[in-house]
Amino acid sequence: MESIKVALLGFGVVGSGVFNILQDNKEKIESHIQKRIEIKKILVRDIEKARGANAPKEMLTKDINDIVNDPEIDMVVELMGGIGKAYEYMKIAIENKKHIVTANKALIATHGDEIYKLAVENGVQIRYEASVGGGIPIINTLTQSLAANNVDEILGVINGTTNFILTQMDEQGMDFDDAVKLAQDSGFAEADPTSDIEGEDVAFKLSILMSVAFGIKVPPHKIPREGITKISSKDIEFANQLGYKVKLVAAAKKKGDDLEFHVQPSFLPIDHPLASIKNEFNAVFIKGNAVGELLLHGKGAGSTPTGSAVLGDMLEIAKIIGTNYKPGAPLVHNGGDLNLIGEGVSPYYVHLHVEDKPGVLGKITSAFGKHNVSLKSVIQRSRGEKTVPLIFITYDTPRKDLDDAIEEIKNTDAVIRVESILRVES
Amino acid sequence: MESIKVALLGFGVVGSGVFNILQDNKEKIESHIQKRIEIKKILVRDIEKARGANAPKEMLTKDINDIVNDPEIDMVVELMGGIGKAYEYMKIAIENKKHIVTANKALIATHGDEIYKLAVENGVQIRYEASVGGGIPIINTLTQSLAANNVDEILGVINGTTNFILTQMDEQGMDFDDAVKLAQDSGFAEADPTSDIEGEDVAFKLSILMSVAFGIKVPPHKIPREGITKISSKDIEFANQLGYKVKLVAAAKKKGDDLEFHVQPSFLPIDHPLASIKNEFNAVFIKGNAVGELLLHGKGAGSTPTGSAVLGDMLEIAKIIGTNYKPGAPLVHNGGDLNLIGEGVSPYYVHLHVEDKPGVLGKITSAFGKHNVSLKSVIQRSRGEKTVPLIFITYDTPRKDLDDAIEEIKNTDAVIRVESILRVES
Repeated sequence: MESIKVALLGFGVVGSGVFNILQDNKEKIESHIQKRIEIKKILVRDIEKARGANAPKEMLTKDINDIVNDPEIDMVVELMGGIGKAYEYMKIAIENKKHIVTANKALIATHGDEIYKLAVENGVQIRYEASVGGGIPIINTLTQSLAANNVDEILGVINGTTNFILTQMDEQGMDFDDAVKLAQDSGFAEADPTSDIEGEDVAFKLSILMSVAFGIKVPPHKIPREGITKISSKDIEFANQLGYKVKLVAAAKKKGDDLEFHVQPSFLPIDHPLASIKNEFNAVFIKGNAVGELLLHGKGAGSTPTGSAVLGDMLEIAKIIGTNYKPGAPLVHNGGDLNLIGEGVSPYYVHLHVEDKPGVLGKITSAFGKHNVSLKSVIQRSRGEKTVPLIFITYDTPRKDLDDAIEEIKNTDAVIRVESILRVES
Repeated sequence: MESIKVALLGFGVVGSGVFNILQDNKEKIESHIQKRIEIKKILVRDIEKARGANAPKEMLTKDINDIVNDPEIDMVVELMGGIGKAYEYMKIAIENKKHIVTANKALIATHGDEIYKLAVENGVQIRYEASVGGGIPIINTLTQSLAANNVDEILGVINGTTNFILTQMDEQGMDFDDAVKLAQDSGFAEADPTSDIEGEDVAFKLSILMSVAFGIKVPPHKIPREGITKISSKDIEFANQLGYKVKLVAAAKKKGDDLEFHVQPSFLPIDHPLASIKNEFNAVFIKGNAVGELLLHGKGAGSTPTGSAVLGDMLEIAKIIGTNYKPGAPLVHNGGDLNLIGEGVSPYYVHLHVEDKPGVLGKITSAFGKHNVSLKSVIQRSRGEKTVPLIFITYDTPRKDLDDAIEEIKNTDAVIRVESILRVES
C-alpha cells in the first residue's frame, strides 16, 4: 500500500486530535483511500512539553527545515494558528511542493489569495475545511455539493465561545462576566477571550465563507462587526419575552445586486433554525437558488471534531497525489458585480434606560421619527420605580439613521443611558 | 472552454430541475469548473408531452442508442427511477464508457454493488448523492468530510411524504387519511403513496446510507421496517403529552460489535435534533467517533433541490474528466465484522384499547411481566366511558418478547384491540 508522508506544524489541541484519529481509525482510513497516511515529522516549540497525544520524541522537531527540505514529505498540515510564523512556513512549504491543509482562519481570511496563487504556481493543493465551523463540512458543501447553486444567503452561528456564553446567560440567567468565567473554566474560552467576544474570530470566518459562497473577497477588517460584550441578561430576558433568542450571527445576504454582510449579536425569531443552536455547537444556514434552505449543525471546535475536518481534507489530497488532477479554485474571486453594502437595512432592538416621568416616551419617539426610524413596537413596563427600561423594535432602517436618532435621544432629558442596540433578523 | 457533453435519461420533475438550473446558473457553473456542461440528448417516452423545462425538440429522443452510441457524450444522468429499464440502460451506458450520475435509490440500494463493479471495470465514475435526502449533501459528507470517522450512528428523517403527513397530523390534528389527501393535493405524495407510507422508500435510502457509513451491505428487503399507516392522531396526541414527536425514522446504530438497523415510526424526545424537522424537510443525524454529533437538514425532494445534488455530482465528474484520477470506492463493503442484529432492543410505546373494568390493568401488566417486558410508565385516563385507551412505555426489550406479550394480551378478556406499537428513541 502506498504511503503518504505528512508533517504537522503545531501539536496542540487540534494537532493531537489529528494524531489520535489517525491512530484510532487507521483501518477505516486505509480501507477508504487505499493508501497509508504516515506522520513523519511534527514541528513544535518545545520538545519536552506534555501533550494530548503520544508521538515518539524522534518525530518532533523545532526546525521547519527538517520538514520543508525532506523530499519524502508530501503534505504539510498547518495547525499553529495566527499569521506570522504560520504564513512564513506555509509559503516555504508550498515553494517546496508540499500540499497544504490548514485550520487557520486568520491566515486564510487575510492572505488566502496570495497563498492560493502560490499553490497554483507550485502545482499543489490547499484545503481549509477546518478553518470555519470545526467539524461541520461547510467548505466542502459550498464548493462541491452546492457548486451549481447561486447562493442567496449565509447565516452562521460560528463561534462556540460566544454561543456558550449567550446560552448560559439565557438558560441560567447569568451575567456576562460570570458566563465568560464559566466558559473559561469549561475550556470553551481562552484566558484572553477578546478575539471571540469582540467578533473578530467570526469576521475571519465570514470573510472565508463569502469568498467561497459568493466569489467575493471582503477583508475581515472591512466587515462591520460588533461583539457580545454589551449584552446584558436583561436584553436576553426581553428577547425571550418578545419571542427571540440572542445569537452572535455572521450574515451575508444578496438583496438584488447588493451584498449585505455583518457580524453582530442579533435577535433571531425563536422558530429560526439558528435560534436553537446551543452552547459550543455551531451551525450554518444556507439559502441556495436551487437547493433552497439547508442547515448544517455540529461541533464548531475541539480536538477531534476539528481534527475530523482536517483529516477529511488530508484524505482528499492523499487520494489525488500521484494523479494529474487539479481540483478547482475555491478562492477565485469573480462575483465582482455585487455592490458591497455592509450593514444594509434591518429592524433593530433598542434598549434604553430612562426616568419614569411624563413626556419621556413622546420625546424619544419624536427623535426616532425625525431621523426616519419607524417603530414597530414599544415596551414600557413601569413597576413604580423611578427609572425603567424602555424597549423599541424598529422597522427596517439604515444603521446610520438609527445612530443619528440615538445620538439625539442620548441627549434627551430623562434618558439615563442607551443599554444596547441589536439587529433583529427576520 | 472545454465542453462536457451530457445526456439525461428521463425528463420529469428532477430532469427539468437539472435542465433549468444549468440554464439559470450557467455563469456560476462555468466559472466554478472552467468547463461548459452541455446537455446533448434527453431520453423520454413521449416527445410531445409538456414538461417543466423547455428543451428544444431535437434534443429529445426515445432511443437509448442515440445516447449510448454517441461517442461525444461523456456522462449519462439517470433520472428515470425504478429498476427495470433504468438498470438496463445504466449498464449499457457504463459499458459504453459513460460516467454515471443517478438519483435512483431503488437501483443503487438493490444493484449498487454490480453497478459499481461494472463502473470500475470500465474506468468510469458513478455518483448518487441525490438518491438520499434530495438536496442534503449526505453522501459527500460521509464519503469525504467524515471519511476519517468511524460512524457510530445514523438517524434519518428521509422521506418528505411521510414527514409531511405526520406534521399535518400533529399540527392540525388531522386523521391519517385526510393528511394523505392533503399531501397528494400539495404535490408531496404520489397518487399511489404506498412505497412512501409503507417505509419502502426509506429502506432503500437506509440501505445506501449503511453501505456508505458502515461499509456494510444490507439489502433493503432485509431491513426490518414498518410504515406509518397504523398511526392515529390519538397516538400523536399521546406522544405530545409524553414529551415526544412521532417521526418515521431510519436508524443504524453500532452497539459494541452489533449493528442495529430499522425503519420505523418512532417516538423522538421533543429536544432530539430530528424532532423539529417538519413537513417535506428531511434531516440526517450522524454520530462519528471523531466529529461527534452532526445534523444536516434541508429539502429532501423537489425539482431544484434534488437537481442541485445531481448537478453537484455532475460537476465533480466534469472536473475529473480528462485526468487520470479515479476517486475511491464509496460502495466497497468491508465493515463485515459487525453482527447485523436488525431491530435490537428498544423501549416501546404500546397503545391498547380496553374495556374500563376492574382487573384489566393487572392482567395486562402480568402478561408483560411473564414475557420479561418491564414497564416504565402506564397512562390510564378514565373518562367515565365504557372503553378507554391504555398507554404503556416499556423499558428496553427485544421486539420478539414484546410481540409474545402482545399476543397474549390480545387474547385477554376486556382487551378490545391493540391500536399501535411504536419504537421510542432515547
